[in-house]
Amino acid sequence: MKHILTLVVMLLFFSCSSEKEKKQPTFGIVIHGGAGTILKENMSDEMEKAYIEKLTEAITLGHAILKSGGTSQDAVEKTIHVMENSPLFNSGKGAVLTENESIALDASFMDGKTLNSGAIAGVKHIKNPISAAIKVMHNSPHVLLSGAGADRFAVEQNLDTVPESYFITARRLRDLKSVQQLETDKKLILNSSEHLYFKNQRYGTVGCVALDLNGNLAAGTSTGGMTNKKWGRIGDAPIIGAGTYANNLSCGVSATGWGEFFIRSVVAHDIAALVEYKKLSVKEASKQVLQKVEDLGGDGGVVVMDTHGNVAMEFNTPGMYRAHMNSEGKLNVRIYGDN
Amino acid sequence: MKHILTLVVMLLFFSCSSEKEKKQPTFGIVIHGGAGTILKENMSDEMEKAYIEKLTEAITLGHAILKSGGTSQDAVEKTIHVMENSPLFNSGKGAVLTENESIALDASFMDGKTLNSGAIAGVKHIKNPISAAIKVMHNSPHVLLSGAGADRFAVEQNLDTVPESYFITARRLRDLKSVQQLETDKKLILNSSEHLYFKNQRYGTVGCVALDLNGNLAAGTSTGGMTNKKWGRIGDAPIIGAGTYANNLSCGVSATGWGEFFIRSVVAHDIAALVEYKKLSVKEASKQVLQKVEDLGGDGGVVVMDTHGNVAMEFNTPGMYRAHMNSEGKLNVRIYGDN
Repeated sequence: MKHILTLVVMLLFFSCSSEKEKKQPTFGIVIHGGAGTILKENMSDEMEKAYIEKLTEAITLGHAILKSGGTSQDAVEKTIHVMENSPLFNSGKGAVLTENESIALDASFMDGKTLNSGAIAGVKHIKNPISAAIKVMHNSPHVLLSGAGADRFAVEQNLDTVPESYFITARRLRDLKSVQQLETDKKLILNSSEHLYFKNQRYGTVGCVALDLNGNLAAGTSTGGMTNKKWGRIGDAPIIGAGTYANNLSCGVSATGWGEFFIRSVVAHDIAALVEYKKLSVKEASKQVLQKVEDLGGDGGVVVMDTHGNVAMEFNTPGMYRAHMNSEGKLNVRIYGDN
Repeated sequence: MKHILTLVVMLLFFSCSSEKEKKQPTFGIVIHGGAGTILKENMSDEMEKAYIEKLTEAITLGHAILKSGGTSQDAVEKTIHVMENSPLFNSGKGAVLTENESIALDASFMDGKTLNSGAIAGVKHIKNPISAAIKVMHNSPHVLLSGAGADRFAVEQNLDTVPESYFITARRLRDLKSVQQLETDKKLILNSSEHLYFKNQRYGTVGCVALDLNGNLAAGTSTGGMTNKKWGRIGDAPIIGAGTYANNLSCGVSATGWGEFFIRSVVAHDIAALVEYKKLSVKEASKQVLQKVEDLGGDGGVVVMDTHGNVAMEFNTPGMYRAHMNSEGKLNVRIYGDN
């Protein structure tokens, strides 16, 4: 009887460990195209279709890279390219304009395995800012480059550069005029115009978090910032810890929203800290940190993924352009406040 | 017997609560003037005396503000002014130079009660960058301004501006030439020169954390960055969460060191997260986070204070210019690796 029991225990042990070994490594990808006052009643069928199609195109490309064994870095970069190259989003082509009708693009990237990071702020000529952020990470001793110096770095790195006019669209010129008109009409002083600044512009920062078959997370974010921004304003998107963070010990995060509140709340790192130190799920951590942002008066959203492929797509705005694809290829693409 | 016992318990209760009520509110201030290879054998008696005197002057001023009921914001600002106005430190006058022999100053400030924050990066004409950071916080809808736009904002705010030549000292011109010569001699490619970049320049970012009699923390940091910096490089000093963080729920932090590693480690917020979420002391949290920085290959130091006035002055470099004064006015000023 004792021998039989020993045998059963041994068999159970081996069956469990072989199951563990056989377990398929997981991977996944999650993206956002910005959070804001995105309501079904204000959206034409045509625009809705265009957003759904572009989000699907972007995430499908990243998913294919991951499925074929590519790195999370490569998936994040190529996925964000699709959104940067589309005028639908506030990043790359179609970015919002500064007070001088000019362009100032921000982007950042972080590698969850090494904590290597790169970012650029206030560039005018780099076609794909996310690639410049990745180049800063690999080919400079710095993490964050800014302004004309960052544009010069991109040229030295042989990245695609374009004239500023490439990025500027009629839609964003209209947005700028509207925001400026509104400020003039209301004779707003700056402190009280904060709400209108945000509410009356288009949203659309883009971002991506990916987990590859090697279990490595990466996160990236790319944006044109806020319409009518002044004085060389830099938002949360190029700030490691605020707009972007990735760490294999916790999770990868890309944020979108009212950048000032996301900087003050150190949103991306705070989510990761709650996951690592308080063992919260990515969903619960995201909810708690967005609640803190809301308590300060800000809004926006995040996409988050941990090394098990658990995902959160949380926001406290009416909508967020977003999509998730798991390792089975199941696609979940959404715009409004339903899940 | 029972009545006597009840009486004793009641007496104990009232004596405890009255002691609690009588407890003096605490306050305190801690500063740093940069961490690095600061060794007794390389320091003249005259220079040592100059540093001790300037650190003492700065912290004594801030302490007096706090003692007379001033705010932690005011104490941090005025204390940092003393160090910004001294050519001994790498901030304000005496800041290190970029590759083009120019100036690019960074600073940030955070209020621990409201989480309001302000920062500027890459400015050339603001005499006291910490004051510009505070103005950004109060008088703009933004948190982080950069480059010429930030200088323009300072002019609009009637802050003291100076020609770039005001900041430039013979010592920093020599430092720049040395670093550039070293790079040329060694024909270093950028990736491998990271260590030398840092090791062969002067350190001296300045920072301050203060706790006022109302129990409010504030933190500020001001720097010229790294000698020979390129491409509009921005370090950790103007990044909320990296170089500066303050939150009455956890602690105030100002960091100094190899900025790139401090950004990647989100040093200031990570210390606060360990204090808030894992209930570590400010000293233990600082040690753990600096160990993470060291594991990545970086070095530097932090000054930290919580709302009880507990303080940490931790660093993993040979020395750090630092000082602490508690509510009793006890001064602890240090340069080398002793405590």
